[in-house]
Amino acid sequence: MKFVYTGIRVQDMERALDFYTRIMGMRVTHRVPIEETGGEVAGLRSAGSAHELELNFYPPGSRFWSSYEPGEGLDHLAFNVQDADATYGELVAKGAQPALEPFDEGGWRLAYIRDPDGNWIELESRIRARAKRPQV
Amino acid sequence: MKFVYTGIRVQDMERALDFYTRIMGMRVTHRVPIEETGGEVAGLRSAGSAHELELNFYPPGSRFWSSYEPGEGLDHLAFNVQDADATYGELVAKGAQPALEPFDEGGWRLAYIRDPDGNWIELESRIRARAKRPQV
Repeated sequence: MKFVYTGIRVQDMERALDFYTRIMGMRVTHRVPIEETGGEVAGLRSAGSAHELELNFYPPGSRFWSSYEPGEGLDHLAFNVQDADATYGELVAKGAQPALEPFDEGGWRLAYIRDPDGNWIELESRIRARAKRPQV
Repeated sequence: MKFVYTGIRVQDMERALDFYTRIMGMRVTHRVPIEETGGEVAGLRSAGSAHELELNFYPPGSRFWSSYEPGEGLDHLAFNVQDADATYGELVAKGAQPALEPFDEGGWRLAYIRDPDGNWIELESRIRARAKRPQV
């Protein structure tokens, strides 16, 4: 069994696609209607990763539709970046909702934003040891 | 920005680890306490995939703790398998909760189970065209 994608539910497909492409830099691999649900799905990938993020939209009236609360199931989606502080600033400037300002955790620099449906997204970068300068 | 892992929240780390290792066949890559949350995280991978599934546990009293509802944020985690019908039967026999019996959808055979926290897991296999036999 191979873990191939993560499906999240979205309330507005256009809004979610705008966020994950324009702000998160992912590309759409497919977008298709789904007979079983009456809705549609879109698949996205980020550079360097084979794992897909699937956006699932169920229209009102579908047997899979229900009122939307992000809930506790999904904790966060994580993206590796060069510099969490810089990326956090850039994404918030582009319109992403801030969730948690950058902080250090076990060798990593972490920051969190929210997607348009309220799900948390982690930006993580390795903390590099600063080059030591000789004392003069 | 590279999509590197999917973090889900779990209510009982041992129960979730048992499910994702014994039933889903994943292996634990790390398990560490997290200073910022007072809880712990465990990372798991499946054969052939670089994408990690992270299990997040927050103890009562942590500022990240809240009562647990799976909610709508996470729609499902998808695993590619050889034969969705056979795997669905095997996993349910091992104790996985069934969610949706196998059905066809756009060239795929799909089936769903639930993890111990109520999150949906998709088992997907390609429907192969049956070899045509000459009419005699």
